[in-house]
Order: sequence, then structure tokens, then C-alpha cells
Amino acid sequence: MNTLTVDLGERSYPIHIGRGLLRQPELVRPHVHGTQVMIVTNTTVAPLYLDACRALFDGFEVADVVLPDGEQYKNLDTLKLIYDALMERRFDRRCTLVALGGGVIGDITGFAAASYQRGVNFIQVPTTLLAQVDSSVGGKTGVNHPLGKNMIGAFHQPQAVIIDTDTLDTLEDRQLSAGLAEVIKYGLIRDAEFFEYLEERLPDLLARDKGQLAYAIERSCWNKAEVVAADEREAGQRALLNLGHTFGHAIEAGMGYGNWLHGEAIAAGMMQAGYMSHLMGDLSEADLQRMKAAFETARLPVYPPAEMTPERFMELMAGDKKVQAGRIRLVLLKAIGQAYVSGDYPAELLQRTLTEWRAA
Amino acid sequence: MNTLTVDLGERSYPIHIGRGLLRQPELVRPHVHGTQVMIVTNTTVAPLYLDACRALFDGFEVADVVLPDGEQYKNLDTLKLIYDALMERRFDRRCTLVALGGGVIGDITGFAAASYQRGVNFIQVPTTLLAQVDSSVGGKTGVNHPLGKNMIGAFHQPQAVIIDTDTLDTLEDRQLSAGLAEVIKYGLIRDAEFFEYLEERLPDLLARDKGQLAYAIERSCWNKAEVVAADEREAGQRALLNLGHTFGHAIEAGMGYGNWLHGEAIAAGMMQAGYMSHLMGDLSEADLQRMKAAFETARLPVYPPAEMTPERFMELMAGDKKVQAGRIRLVLLKAIGQAYVSGDYPAELLQRTLTEWRAA
Repeated sequence: MNTLTVDLGERSYPIHIGRGLLRQPELVRPHVHGTQVMIVTNTTVAPLYLDACRALFDGFEVADVVLPDGEQYKNLDTLKLIYDALMERRFDRRCTLVALGGGVIGDITGFAAASYQRGVNFIQVPTTLLAQVDSSVGGKTGVNHPLGKNMIGAFHQPQAVIIDTDTLDTLEDRQLSAGLAEVIKYGLIRDAEFFEYLEERLPDLLARDKGQLAYAIERSCWNKAEVVAADEREAGQRALLNLGHTFGHAIEAGMGYGNWLHGEAIAAGMMQAGYMSHLMGDLSEADLQRMKAAFETARLPVYPPAEMTPERFMELMAGDKKVQAGRIRLVLLKAIGQAYVSGDYPAELLQRTLTEWRAA
Repeated sequence: MNTLTVDLGERSYPIHIGRGLLRQPELVRPHVHGTQVMIVTNTTVAPLYLDACRALFDGFEVADVVLPDGEQYKNLDTLKLIYDALMERRFDRRCTLVALGGGVIGDITGFAAASYQRGVNFIQVPTTLLAQVDSSVGGKTGVNHPLGKNMIGAFHQPQAVIIDTDTLDTLEDRQLSAGLAEVIKYGLIRDAEFFEYLEERLPDLLARDKGQLAYAIERSCWNKAEVVAADEREAGQRALLNLGHTFGHAIEAGMGYGNWLHGEAIAAGMMQAGYMSHLMGDLSEADLQRMKAAFETARLPVYPPAEMTPERFMELMAGDKKVQAGRIRLVLLKAIGQAYVSGDYPAELLQRTLTEWRAA
């Protein structure tokens, strides 16, 4: 097992990464302060890991709530099911929530923890690659609004993140690929050496090589933890983590939540950002092709869906959280490993990107 | 105009108190950081003050959302109307929300501000006495759950509180009395001298003497600001502000939100806490009668409704936020002006209070 720390002063917390951690109660028990534990999971994960997760908290008052699975359920109505379960069991403000599942479960459980009785503790137990390398770390929580992703939420850090890499054994291939999109992202925005590693090792990761997966998860979490520690509330560099996300969120919303996985949408979105960076005269043609090859190797889409016209993109992107005073702020690349945020780019290059970067 | 400050380091903010402040744009404009302002109000307040409030923000992009009036609408469904309005207008994360109304509007708008795009600015413009002396100050925001009051929310401080005492001209008598319950509370928990002032001046306050009202509001806000500055997140003394609230919240929920006003419910609740304090051997019979006389002068109920049996109280109080490990923590009085929190009292004294302190 390896342990990283997200360094946020008195709100610092550990990320434990390793095999068989769902059988190690000593990792989670120090993070439960009261007597009541509510495990939040979904219909896909519950049959696989709920019993093991419950056993971690033997001796506490443990309850669970099993939500429907999918991005289309990451909304206020589903959030209400968690509040109902907590209220019906009379859970008090010293209770602990446990998010057992992927990114949707982590985000919605985190927001329930941020807002139940004005804030209770929670522990992240991510079971998808995407949640393990990205969404379980950093305290961004929330739900979607029909008109935009993650529009309702809070910054609320967990007490601990427990990444049992054995849970990836049951992950379907499409979800594994989706997780790799966020892994590749770290290479693109700030870790060129990691990108080179991935160019070589993506086939091993797809083949679920345990050692390589553990390394890729750890290096991703290390990148994430460093960015979050420097800029918890996204006043500056944390925004770089959103490479491809403004385009990607538009795809997710435009196609209907749950149809394109988040990782799939941001893969196409990162390619759009890459193409625009190339049009800006920054990213070389060769590096654009390296990006494309990496996503293709990871079995991810590199073009947006045909249904997403430039007009539809503009309509949906105008509601993004990164819009300031009417300008859509985008994360762009100077080169592989060097990202920056800008609202100050020629508008026609964004138009050209939306028009030109499409499947033949 | 008088100005108090809630001293919370970089989150400090002013409380401006005076007549005609709804005609003074210079008070609010420094607190708007972006270009977009969303005024949240209700169907009662909108015809009276929405135009004046909009005029304060002349030159900004101003929108409004008018909610139904009443505690029964302080819920997730109404909150959603605010999110919808913000999303439809494409308000960005630099927008400012303005809460124009009573405690319900302030709490729900504050929570919308805490959670929209993970947190935006807001300004409190309270128009009821209760909101002016209590709920607009201190950053407690939230909505009710069908099984308990204020169970979903956040700590989120406003940028400023603007108390235009002229708005009390249009307040109905019942609401004025309800506000006095919170005013009297400050005397009871920590300001015996203020309680003595109130024993003499409550008739003037009921007669809407502007000078006395301004004084009572200012002294209440001073008490509140001092407590909040010392204990923003209710780790200790802030809990004293809940005198009568555990009983009172049970009354509000038990009678159906909106039937007993919050101030009415906590007046009866404070008397129950007083009676129990008397049974504990602390509060003298004479002081209990002084409390009763003050609430009666303020035209507030001093007994819980007949429908609220001891069994019903216990059932509803068990879900209170102040419950810890199954013990109902109560705010009790050593004397007028001296409150304390305890979960360690003889259970039979709580039972006797629920059984004995009732209308003949």
C-alpha cells in the first residue's frame, strides 16, 4: 500500500492506494468520529462490494442507501434519497457518510455530506478508475442541473480516500477506458514525462496489469493532490484540471446525461482543445497526433458526436461555470505538459475548431 | 444609520441599520463583484419593495425570482426555482444573490448562494423583524426536510446585511410579535440588562416606536454578531442562540410548517426551557413569571399547542440537529441572562416539562 497526503492544513487527508484495502478496517475506522455510518452506493456496485464495505465498519451503526446507476441520476431528486435515508434513520451531525462507487456516487455523496445538518464527515471509497484518479480527490462535490453539469454543489473535503485497486477487476472495459481519459489528462496539462510513460504503457493498463495500474493511479493522484493543495477553491491553476471539460460537459449535456460517459466526452473535448491550441500556433501538428494516438489506443473517441453542431456547442458552453462576463474561458495547451487558461483568444478559432475538428 | 461588523477575519461583513437604506445604493454596490444580480423575494414582499431593491442595482444586469410566501415553502423544491432562474439567465459564478424578505427568504437564498456553482456572493436585505435581529446575521443557511427543520444547508456568510427599519411599517402585527421572540431571547441567554429594558419597552416596540425599534434591533444584532464571531460553526457558545428552538422546531414540524410562526413556536419553547430550568432548581419562580409576562406582553404564546402531546414532542425532538449519540441536548437557563447547553439532565424533568407546562 502507498499513501499520499492532500496537504490542506487542518483539512489534510490521506489517499491510501493498494490491493485488498476493502479488507483493512484499520484504514477507515480512525476517520469515523461518531457512531453512525451511512454507505451510499449504486445498484451496480452494491452486489459486488457493499458487504465488504459494511464489514469495514463492524461495531458501528451502519446503514446504506442504494441509488440507481448513471450520470442521469446525478441530480437533486437522487440527492433527496440520501437526505431521506439519513433523516429516517435519525442520523445526527456526527455521522459519517461513505461514498462507495464511481464519480457520480462520490460527487453526490460528498454534496450530501456538505449539506446534511450543514456539514458532516465523509470517506471516499472509489471503485472506478475515473473516481480513483480524479473525482474522489479534491473536495469538489455536487449534482447536475438540467441545463449544466455540476452546477449545484460545494467544496467539501473527505476525511480519507481509500483506493482498493482490486475493485478494478470488476470494472467493464468501457469504464476503464473512460478513466484513462483523466489519466492522460494529467500528462497533457502538467506532466510530459507521465505522458511519455503512457504512450508506452497504455496497452498494459488496458490489459489491467496491476502494477502499472497502481503506478498510473498513484502518479495521477499525486498530480491532483499537488494542484488541489496549491489552489483548493480554483482561484488559479486548479482550473487547468478542466482541460477538455468545457467541450466535454457540452457533449454530456447535449447527448443526454449518461449516454456519453464523462471520460469519453472529455477525451473528445481534449482533442478539440488540442486542435484549437494547434490553430493558435502553439501545439505542433506532431504533438496533436500524439494526443490523438494516445486516446485512440485507450479506445476513446477523438471527435465529438455528429449531433453536436457548432451552434449546439456554443449554446451549451455559454452556461459553463468557467464563463466570466460572457467570455467562455478555455484550457488550452502550449505543448504537451503545459496548459494554460484563457478567455482571450480569437473567437473565430473557437468557431473553426467546432466546425473543422470532426469525424470525416 | 449605525453600522456593526461581524468580525470573521477575511469573511467579516457590515450590518447597516437605519431608516431609508433601500434608497442608498452606495451601501450595497461595493458588495457586488460581478455584473449580474439576482433578487430573491416572495409574493408578499415583491409588491412592496422589489422596485426599490432593483433600483439599488441600477446599471447591473438585474433579474428576480418571486417565491411563494411561507415556511411551508422552505424546501428543496422551492430552492430549485432559484437554481432554475439562475441557469436560465446564465448567471455565472461571479453573480450576486440578494435576499429580500424574511427569514425563509434569507435562509433559502443563502443556501442557493452557498451551492450555486459551489458558492457565489449574497447580500441580506431582511424585511421582517425576525430576519433583521436574527436570521440575516451569522451565515446559517438552509431549507427544511419534511422530518426536521433546517436539516439541509450550509454555513455561508453574506457580503453585507442591509436593515432598512422603514420596512417594518408594512409588517403585520403577528410577524412583529414573532420577531420580538428572538429579541427577548438575547436578553434571556446573555444580556440581563437588555431583558430589563424590554420589560419596560415592549409596549413601545409593539406600538412601532422607530427609535426604540432601531435600538432593539441594534442591540440584538450586536449580541448575535458577538456570538457568531466567537463561534462561527457552533462548536460551543453559538448553540446558546437555540434557546427554545428544540421544543419550538418540534412544534413547527408537528403543527405543519407555516401554521405556527417560528417566533411563536420558540416563545412557547423558551417557556418550556424556562420551566425545566425551574424544575432543575436553577431559574427562580419569580424569573419564570417575568419571562412569561414578557412573552405575553409581546402577544406571543407561552404554552405549546394542545395537539403536541409529550409523545409527539419526544418523537420530533429526537431528530433535532443538537442530538448527539441519542441524547437530546437542550439550552437551559441558570438565571435570566445566563444560558448553558446540556445533554446531562434527569430525563424525568424533560418528561415533567412536556407533561406539566401546558395551558390549563
